Amino acid sequence: MIITVVGLGVVGGSFVKALKGHGHQVYGIDIDENTLKRAEDEGCIIKGYQDGREIISKSDLTIICLYPSLVLDFIKNNQFKKGSIITDAVGIKSYFLQEAMNIIDPDVEFVSGHPMAGREKKGFEYASKDVFKNANYILIEHPVNKKECIEFMEKFVGTLGFKSVKIMSPQAHDEIISFTSQLPHAIAVALINSDNEKYDTGKYIGDSYRDLTRIANINEALWSELFLRNRENLLKSIEAFELQLDLIKQGLVENDEQILKKLFINSSKRRENLEK
Amino acid sequence: MIITVVGLGVVGGSFVKALKGHGHQVYGIDIDENTLKRAEDEGCIIKGYQDGREIISKSDLTIICLYPSLVLDFIKNNQFKKGSIITDAVGIKSYFLQEAMNIIDPDVEFVSGHPMAGREKKGFEYASKDVFKNANYILIEHPVNKKECIEFMEKFVGTLGFKSVKIMSPQAHDEIISFTSQLPHAIAVALINSDNEKYDTGKYIGDSYRDLTRIANINEALWSELFLRNRENLLKSIEAFELQLDLIKQGLVENDEQILKKLFINSSKRRENLEK
Repeated sequence: MIITVVGLGVVGGSFVKALKGHGHQVYGIDIDENTLKRAEDEGCIIKGYQDGREIISKSDLTIICLYPSLVLDFIKNNQFKKGSIITDAVGIKSYFLQEAMNIIDPDVEFVSGHPMAGREKKGFEYASKDVFKNANYILIEHPVNKKECIEFMEKFVGTLGFKSVKIMSPQAHDEIISFTSQLPHAIAVALINSDNEKYDTGKYIGDSYRDLTRIANINEALWSELFLRNRENLLKSIEAFELQLDLIKQGLVENDEQILKKLFINSSKRRENLEK
Repeated sequence: MIITVVGLGVVGGSFVKALKGHGHQVYGIDIDENTLKRAEDEGCIIKGYQDGREIISKSDLTIICLYPSLVLDFIKNNQFKKGSIITDAVGIKSYFLQEAMNIIDPDVEFVSGHPMAGREKKGFEYASKDVFKNANYILIEHPVNKKECIEFMEKFVGTLGFKSVKIMSPQAHDEIISFTSQLPHAIAVALINSDNEKYDTGKYIGDSYRDLTRIANINEALWSELFLRNRENLLKSIEAFELQLDLIKQGLVENDEQILKKLFINSSKRRENLEK
């Protein structure tokens, strides 16, 4: 199979690295010449292209790992092989799929996906097949998808090290992702921004503050797009979180140990069972 | 110098491991016989005691790594060597020091401390001198402390791998800690408790949710005590956080990309500079 990965950043780079040794013909497209050369030198891709039109027209599977708006541009500006599959790694799906379905050739199958894997560090040098190890994958099924294409993608992803592949609608994806991905980012941003900077904070932190603020360092263009394209779900998730924070506040205001203990017992049990 | 570490859990265990090879005579006290045996076998302590009265009366430095209320009991029930120093690792200081000063022998110097190091895992087997590596330490100075004892502790802690040792009042400690430690714990608990459990959440998470909920698994007795003994500071920290979360909500409600971008640029800059 001819597979082309578009955008060899940390996610796209991890795809080409995870694909090594699986017997596919893997090509890469990126704007950065050095990245392409490095991917070639490491034997991850047969050849790299800055202009991918030629290889795209021959690819059986195109994995587009670009920012949402660039994925749409890429689909618009390229002629894909008839009967081939395109997939992506965009973090929001309802809005994005609507847009994508408007521009995609009906002879081409778009199976949208979301590898729940990444790093706060950017770029090919941080890409690794370990990024995918034990990570979760969500595949999006929408009414025009062919069943066999979804099944193919499920199997394909399963060979790359992911521990779970779930198939769901774009709406369900955006609902759960507003809670598991966007809410944590909103919280991390609000936490570090709420520092009154009276003290030299970095000298008074442990791993808890480090862990909770790590994802506060984010690309503002990407994340404002992700937040705004899923704003209703995200607002609901924030409000549910605030209700729980209110319970903690209630325990503090009323000096009620029992309220707090109950909340902590519940959170501990949930955390222990999270990935069981 | 004769040093006795009381409680060989992850923090106390890390103390005896970090003290190896520094030329001190190190002893350990713990209720668990196996832990003491293991610490002896690993050459971390000369001898372990379940009843420590004998060794405590000879120790120049006693490092008590027990839960807050147990520290007070231990101080009450033991006769310390005249002129010796006692320290602890309790996470709240104003209330705790008040209680401790009421019961401590005036011939003994209590230099309270807070190693900002730990693990979500409990027990001696997770203790390691690496726990202290590059971590922060806070030493508490109060009016009855002898200057030379504070200076001694500052130097002593510096030999154990910590990258920063700060000296401050109990009030300042509790203020900054309500933000850097207790607020993150409150957030983690509220986040995981706000899961409506409509989906099998563990299959739809990435590292962001894992990182932000790791500390949601906490000991309910310890943490309700830490929260309630510092409730006014913690409530202020929660309220400052909520104001920042409100700004994100405002950006979402008003569909305003500029508000969000500004918040994300600020949080990214703060995170990048956090430990510089």
